[in-house]
Amino acid sequence: MSANLRLFDLAGADDNLRFSPNCWRTRLALAHKGLPVETVAWRFTEKEVIAKSGQGKVPVLVAGDQWLYESWDIAEYLEDTYPDRPSLFGCSQGRAAARFVNQWANEVLHPAMARLLLPDIHAALHEKDKDYFRTTREAAFGRSFSAIAAERDEALAALRRTLAPLRTTLGAQPFVAGAAPAYADHVVFGAFQWAHVITPGSLTVADDPISAWVERMLDAYGGLARAAQRMARR
Amino acid sequence: MSANLRLFDLAGADDNLRFSPNCWRTRLALAHKGLPVETVAWRFTEKEVIAKSGQGKVPVLVAGDQWLYESWDIAEYLEDTYPDRPSLFGCSQGRAAARFVNQWANEVLHPAMARLLLPDIHAALHEKDKDYFRTTREAAFGRSFSAIAAERDEALAALRRTLAPLRTTLGAQPFVAGAAPAYADHVVFGAFQWAHVITPGSLTVADDPISAWVERMLDAYGGLARAAQRMARR
Repeated sequence: MSANLRLFDLAGADDNLRFSPNCWRTRLALAHKGLPVETVAWRFTEKEVIAKSGQGKVPVLVAGDQWLYESWDIAEYLEDTYPDRPSLFGCSQGRAAARFVNQWANEVLHPAMARLLLPDIHAALHEKDKDYFRTTREAAFGRSFSAIAAERDEALAALRRTLAPLRTTLGAQPFVAGAAPAYADHVVFGAFQWAHVITPGSLTVADDPISAWVERMLDAYGGLARAAQRMARR
Repeated sequence: MSANLRLFDLAGADDNLRFSPNCWRTRLALAHKGLPVETVAWRFTEKEVIAKSGQGKVPVLVAGDQWLYESWDIAEYLEDTYPDRPSLFGCSQGRAAARFVNQWANEVLHPAMARLLLPDIHAALHEKDKDYFRTTREAAFGRSFSAIAAERDEALAALRRTLAPLRTTLGAQPFVAGAAPAYADHVVFGAFQWAHVITPGSLTVADDPISAWVERMLDAYGGLARAAQRMARR
C-alpha cells in the first residue's frame, strides 16, 4: 500500500545519535501517518550521497523514485499522498496556520536554541564533519564558538523570552495542534528533541507548561522520541 | 436569526477614530461571519460603562444578556454560536494553531508595534484618557514616552526582524489562513490596522509580501478596514 520509504537522517560520530530537528519533524510525521521508514545515518559532508535530491541538506526522503527534501515539503507530500491516514493538518486552514508555526520555528526558535547547543553538537559530530560545521555555523552567527559559548546565560534568558507565545498556547491547550499532537507540534518539538538528544542537561524549567508538553511529546507515537539514543554526560 | 450585537470599541478624541488592534480582530471576525454589529465609541477611562463584563478592557461584545470580553474568547464564542456561517478556524487543528498565531501577535507583535505607535496614539486620545494611557504604558515599557520616541529607528529595525516568520509565510501563501482570510489573519492584521489608522505614515516596505497582504486585508469584507477613518497628518 505504501512505497518503501528511506530517510537520510543526520547522525553524529555514533551512527545511532540522531539529533537533527528537521529530521525529527519528518520522523514524527511518518509516525503520525503510521508509515514505517528505514533511516540511513548521514553526515553533513556526505553531499554526494543525497545528490539525487538536487541539494545538500537533510531530511531527504526517498519514496520509490522520488527524492524529496525540505521538511515542510515532505510533510505536505505525506499529507497529500496518504490522505486517508491521520491528518497532519486537519484542514486547509490548519495547514496554513501550521506553516506560520513552521516559519516561527525555523526563523526564531532554531537560532535561539542553536546558540545553546552548538558546543554540544560540535562535540557529538563525526570527525569528518567538525570543520564543516564550525566554519558554516561561525559564519552564520558572525562570531566564534568560544564567543557563543561565553554568552550562555544570556542565550538561555533569550530562549525563555522567545518561548513566550508557545508557553501561553500550551497553558491553554495540551498540544499546539489542540487535543492531540500533529504537525504543528512536530515542527516545534523537533527543536526540543534536538536539545534532548544532544545536551546532557535540561533546558526547560519545571512547572512550565512547555516542560509538561515536552514529556507528552516524548511519549507520543509509542515513545518514539523518548527511545532515541542521547549524548552521554561528558 | 442572530442576537442584537453591540461592540464597545476603543475611540480617540474623535468618536469615529477606531484604532484598537484587539477590537479590529472582533470587527473582522463579525464581518467574516456576516453578522451586523452596532459599535459604541468607548474610552480607556470609561470602566463603569463595561463593568457588567466583569473587567475593564475592550473589546466587549454584548450579545443579548451576555457580556463577552477578550478577543480570543469572543472569536471562539462566534465560531461556536454560528457554526453554519463561514468558519473562523476551519477545524479543531486550525483553531489550535490560530491560537499560537494569536499568542504570537499578543506577546511579540503588539509590543514591537506599540513602541512605534505610542506617540501617535497619545496624540489621538480624548483628553480624559491621556494621563491614564501615559501612566499605564510608561509603566509597562519601564521608560518614558520621550525615551521610547528616541528609539524609533531601532524600534523599526526590531519590528522588521520580528516580522520574519510572517514575511516568509506570506511569501508562500496569500493569507495566514491559506487561500482566503480567516481568524489567523484577523489577529495579525489587527496590529497593522492599528498602525494604518493611527499613523499618518507607512510602517511597511514596498516589495514585501506583508505589504501586499495588508492591501488584501484592507480590501477584504467589502473594504471594511480601508473605510476606517484615519488620523490626519499633524
